[in-house]
Amino acid sequence: MSVVCLVNGIAGAALDPLDRGLQYGDGVFRTLRLENGKPRWWEEQLAKLAADAARLAIACPEASLWQSDLANLAGRLSGGVIKLLLTRGSGARGYRPPDAATATRILIHDPTPPVSDTWPAEGLNARICDLRMSVQPHLAGIKHLNRLENVLARAEWNTPEIHEGLLLDAEGHVVSGVMSNLFVWRDGRLLTPSLEQCGVAGVARARLLRRATAAGIAVQETRIGLDEVLAAEEIMLSNSLIGLRRVSRLGERAWPKPVISPQLASLLDA
Amino acid sequence: MSVVCLVNGIAGAALDPLDRGLQYGDGVFRTLRLENGKPRWWEEQLAKLAADAARLAIACPEASLWQSDLANLAGRLSGGVIKLLLTRGSGARGYRPPDAATATRILIHDPTPPVSDTWPAEGLNARICDLRMSVQPHLAGIKHLNRLENVLARAEWNTPEIHEGLLLDAEGHVVSGVMSNLFVWRDGRLLTPSLEQCGVAGVARARLLRRATAAGIAVQETRIGLDEVLAAEEIMLSNSLIGLRRVSRLGERAWPKPVISPQLASLLDA
Repeated sequence: MSVVCLVNGIAGAALDPLDRGLQYGDGVFRTLRLENGKPRWWEEQLAKLAADAARLAIACPEASLWQSDLANLAGRLSGGVIKLLLTRGSGARGYRPPDAATATRILIHDPTPPVSDTWPAEGLNARICDLRMSVQPHLAGIKHLNRLENVLARAEWNTPEIHEGLLLDAEGHVVSGVMSNLFVWRDGRLLTPSLEQCGVAGVARARLLRRATAAGIAVQETRIGLDEVLAAEEIMLSNSLIGLRRVSRLGERAWPKPVISPQLASLLDA
Repeated sequence: MSVVCLVNGIAGAALDPLDRGLQYGDGVFRTLRLENGKPRWWEEQLAKLAADAARLAIACPEASLWQSDLANLAGRLSGGVIKLLLTRGSGARGYRPPDAATATRILIHDPTPPVSDTWPAEGLNARICDLRMSVQPHLAGIKHLNRLENVLARAEWNTPEIHEGLLLDAEGHVVSGVMSNLFVWRDGRLLTPSLEQCGVAGVARARLLRRATAAGIAVQETRIGLDEVLAAEEIMLSNSLIGLRRVSRLGERAWPKPVISPQLASLLDA
């Protein structure tokens, strides 16, 4: 089974090379895991897509359109990954957003299971990336299509034994993983980097913050230095493909045993 | 006459929605002006495209391929704008650049004359953008496809009386215009913002720096504060579409008469 792309609902339709998604990265996206033929956390993903699009003043199609795209692929959705992309569409030359652009809606189904499915259950092996994330409050938190920093950071290593890289900002605060959000457990509190200056605020992250709070766990979005990460009792990574996974090694620092991660992973998945 | 796109040399060919140019903005581009049926500064543009691609480790096609694309459009190139895009191509899911990606080469001819052709000869009207450019040395200077900051900055105004916006970085240094580079004339010296932290280093800018130096004019790439811009004897903007144009007004500050811009524009165009 190969990858299928629906462009505005039509399988195999061409993308206009003038689309602003290509020209400027002028759009947003989501990555979803399929479970039992259904994309996990579908409503939350659509809500975040719409919220991200709104921050860029891109009109997000009704949920029913995405739902109808998904229905068109029913039968082949036994597993793999769904990606939703939404661009501002095509328009006249130049950076200025067209007054009346029609957004381009793309749904991609890739039947290949996430590579993270083969990662060890006992914990992930992470490294610190050299690249420092830039600060841009206007784009912080949004999963937009300007992802060259992630590409360059991910290109820093090419060994399958390393699963993820941690990203710091120019001031040395920890932002996230290249493709995941970070959680730190210390003194009975769950900390995660605040993402008001840079980084992507994932659906798994929001979901875990909400559910941990509801379960009576003290939760805080804050600035976190690398020293605080190294001093943590446990650190964990989250995204929509991996759920929540503990890190067992970050460079020289090892965390041999789980502390809170099994409980938090259950909260996230419940 | 309508817009024509050649994708890997083929007119009207579809762009793969999985192309990393769309997925991540993983690519570079150039915008060229047509003059007498030929793209202006062609060799310099191709050299800068290749240099930008090299910084992202994208293999740039031979100049002969771009030349052949151009030859295929001969006859319709009486005017308008050529845009060259080069992406890393398609590949497996994920940020990591594929080991053996084939770059996607796109040439677009838009017969519409640049809107800047209608701008007043006596000088441009500029404003200061609210958005502050982020700092990323790994991407600074490159004309890459991650241009959301430019899109957001350009969306700040919608009045044709304002021709360009000046971009500052978070520290308040002037970077460039939204779609142009900035030059400042003061005390017999030509200054332009150094672009080691952010911004795009245009071909017109490089060409003017080189030619002004050769003409015995003192030239300096340096950090420039907004106060220095306002205190300048003349300020000018450059890009491949407008060449070099003086600014006659920046907010409240007016520069009623040209000082050095006619001489510099001649140097650039010679």
